Amino acid sequence: MKVLISKKTGRKYLCDPSKDFHCKEGIIKKEDLESSNLSVYSHLRKEFLLTDANEYDYSLNLKRGPQILTNKDLGYILARTGIGRESRIVEAGGGSGAASIFFSKYSKEVSTYEIREEHIKIIEKNLDKHSSNNVSLTLGDLSEHIEKESSFDLLFLDLPDPNQILEKNLHGLKKGKYIVCYLPSITQISHLCELIETKDTLYLEEICEVNLREWKVWKKIARPHHRKEIDHTAFLVFIRKL
Amino acid sequence: MKVLISKKTGRKYLCDPSKDFHCKEGIIKKEDLESSNLSVYSHLRKEFLLTDANEYDYSLNLKRGPQILTNKDLGYILARTGIGRESRIVEAGGGSGAASIFFSKYSKEVSTYEIREEHIKIIEKNLDKHSSNNVSLTLGDLSEHIEKESSFDLLFLDLPDPNQILEKNLHGLKKGKYIVCYLPSITQISHLCELIETKDTLYLEEICEVNLREWKVWKKIARPHHRKEIDHTAFLVFIRKL
Amino acid sequence: MKVLISKKTGRKYLCDPSKDFHCKEGIIKKEDLESSNLSVYSHLRKEFLLTDANEYDYSLNLKRGPQILTNKDLGYILARTGIGRESRIVEAGGGSGAASIFFSKYSKEVSTYEIREEHIKIIEKNLDKHSSNNVSLTLGDLSEHIEKESSFDLLFLDLPDPNQILEKNLHGLKKGKYIVCYLPSITQISHLCELIETKDTLYLEEICEVNLREWKVWKKIARPHHRKEIDHTAFLVFIRKL
Amino acid sequence: MKVLISKKTGRKYLCDPSKDFHCKEGIIKKEDLESSNLSVYSHLRKEFLLTDANEYDYSLNLKRGPQILTNKDLGYILARTGIGRESRIVEAGGGSGAASIFFSKYSKEVSTYEIREEHIKIIEKNLDKHSSNNVSLTLGDLSEHIEKESSFDLLFLDLPDPNQILEKNLHGLKKGKYIVCYLPSITQISHLCELIETKDTLYLEEICEVNLREWKVWKKIARPHHRKEIDHTAFLVFIRKL
Repeated sequence: MKVLISKKTGRKYLCDPSKDFHCKEGIIKKEDLESSNLSVYSHLRKEFLLTDANEYDYSLNLKRGPQILTNKDLGYILARTGIGRESRIVEAGGGSGAASIFFSKYSKEVSTYEIREEHIKIIEKNLDKHSSNNVSLTLGDLSEHIEKESSFDLLFLDLPDPNQILEKNLHGLKKGKYIVCYLPSITQISHLCELIETKDTLYLEEICEVNLREWKVWKKIARPHHRKEIDHTAFLVFIRKL
Repeated sequence: MKVLISKKTGRKYLCDPSKDFHCKEGIIKKEDLESSNLSVYSHLRKEFLLTDANEYDYSLNLKRGPQILTNKDLGYILARTGIGRESRIVEAGGGSGAASIFFSKYSKEVSTYEIREEHIKIIEKNLDKHSSNNVSLTLGDLSEHIEKESSFDLLFLDLPDPNQILEKNLHGLKKGKYIVCYLPSITQISHLCELIETKDTLYLEEICEVNLREWKVWKKIARPHHRKEIDHTAFLVFIRKL
Repeated sequence: MKVLISKKTGRKYLCDPSKDFHCKEGIIKKEDLESSNLSVYSHLRKEFLLTDANEYDYSLNLKRGPQILTNKDLGYILARTGIGRESRIVEAGGGSGAASIFFSKYSKEVSTYEIREEHIKIIEKNLDKHSSNNVSLTLGDLSEHIEKESSFDLLFLDLPDPNQILEKNLHGLKKGKYIVCYLPSITQISHLCELIETKDTLYLEEICEVNLREWKVWKKIARPHHRKEIDHTAFLVFIRKL
Repeated sequence: MKVLISKKTGRKYLCDPSKDFHCKEGIIKKEDLESSNLSVYSHLRKEFLLTDANEYDYSLNLKRGPQILTNKDLGYILARTGIGRESRIVEAGGGSGAASIFFSKYSKEVSTYEIREEHIKIIEKNLDKHSSNNVSLTLGDLSEHIEKESSFDLLFLDLPDPNQILEKNLHGLKKGKYIVCYLPSITQISHLCELIETKDTLYLEEICEVNLREWKVWKKIARPHHRKEIDHTAFLVFIRKL
């Protein structure tokens, strides 16, 4: 796959170079897409930079249903929990599968639970697109399956009420490892913290938000980028199993 | 390895359970460390939570020389550039090796260049501690070696003046992939952007900072955590090779 | 004047209760506007809260030309410099007059310089609307007039290149008092700081940005407000005359 | 009063020029303090910049008991509510009097209520130091006095539980004007919002936090200032009386 970057708007288009590409800014010919030129023109005389697609381009191209988890949050979760090649991850609330795809790249196995059938279909398509073949996807409520999962290194919960699962026996989660909850609202966290207080085997290690601020630096200008600050996505809660 | 978390101060201690552990808060006995108790006491009657160590505990325990790259920045770089199991990474300015260790966990090979001999020794010790065996460490200036490196997926530069390297022929970096510069000061970025403007094969995709804000949620309280906001570390610049 | 707040959209309308009010959400009758009802309806059956207008409503209603200075920045400048009833202020780059109007409310006298004739007209209209009668407005370049101004407590510069004025003799600014520069880009500040370094009588006391973050708290929700974080406006530089 | 600014540490000292000044960095002579020199030396050969004191220096010099309200918050409250020369303000929870002093500078009259006797004494001293003679200070609980206050333009509540007062009849607050609550924790705001929902005459206009970020710009450096970001102080809630 290739990527076209519009010189004028900065917009990116993921395209298959084996056929002509059509977009609002015109048609770009197959011959041009296959070339090794640095820039090409649409039939409307718009200029585009041309290069090979990378993982980031694909991630922007996920079939979207529910809100997509962002790189800033996923990257921090990975780095902060120390997930690696040998890790097993259990997650619920897969939404569009962004977290499943991301974690599957960096771990051994991901076990994803999703309760809504229409989301399962979106996740399957997205997993397929990313050839994520170490994800096992289950239609169902994790709170009913968690006790069957064993020997995993991370429990990731992108659910409005993670308490339901934390009430269960989490013997499958390895000692010293993390449960990470992704919660948009601080009120949900208060509710979660009350539960943690009552559990001897859970230790609240960190509550945080990761904020991304883009900058514009160009000629004599260097300032934060107007209308490009990413909105608040969610708070992250890192809970450790003792 | 095990981890002790002081009930009173929240401080963490990484310890070897095969011998007694000594710290400011007292001595904890080998027998206690080897036990499966959730909490243990030092001879000063201080209580500690006891659990298995994880990757995050190790990362806090790196032998520090120069400033350590933080999880918030490393995680975002990984997620944003889409580095994965098959990726080859070239990096310079290794400092204490935090970036080398981090990238080595998630990629195929890391080639690290460092110009100061005293840093090389710190990096070696840290690589050893983390059994990072897919890092090749070179004492020397990357700007003199970059043209020999071939077929890599990420060029990561934690150097005060990345321009020196960007002036060189970067034919070894794959088309569509990224150069990421880590720069504490916005003035350095202005200088960098001037160079990019003159290069047909480089496209400035994003300049950003990743900010972490910790929260305290406890009983009736829910507010940002005093004195726990991480200071500014650096700006990240994502440059794409066309 | 009265204010209507749409129940559905939250939008506010400043209106004259002595006549019917027309807006996109319908017509509200004079009789309703004059009433003391807490809520009224338009002929399209949209409900509005009705209350008396306040200063904030007026400020949102300034005739806009150039960018309006925001409350977060103006408020901090006032509080930080300690301007009060007896203070005299000299300012340049008045734009639409928001700063002139604001400062005139809290000080004795404001002397505003503006170089563009079309802006002078906007400022005059806005001053008039706010009955700011302690502002003297001059069409012209402050750098040519600054030496005639005497005994003032604040020099406020909302200009792309404040250096031009800081090069002049600032004998009119009282000892110990401030020059405040409002600059959107950090590069402008570098340039400014170079000049300050060379001046014995100028001391750089603070460079900052004031960031406003709105929150949504409603029923079970408490989170930062999507799409309501105010974009970066400008950096503020506080320079003290020795 | 004069101000000494240490060249080395940047620390500021407010001093009376009619006598020698003693501080950790040495003794500065009366003769030097009275001079019009731009810089003077202590007997320990430390250099200080010398200039006239301004309001900001005084505000840093308030006798501190409870936490001091900051310029960033006070400035925004003033600007956002449009308080001016003719305004009457009622406030409770005066703490050390920072808000009383601030508001008194910009309004006609401030009526301050404080329930703790030891705070009353601190406030009195601070009011005296700032010659704030339009503040009337009452020892007592505002919830018991609010119904006697009439015709005011702002009700400012720096109290852990503002609901107690908002439950009362607020007929004294002018129509269209604001109640501002200063609350450190978001949980307090949830509680407050529940009450507002039940009151026909109260309209929640804005919940926000004002964040100050200092920058260091010096020679080739331009970056956020380490260890100078002000911690979270409180959230501000703007409620409008209908």
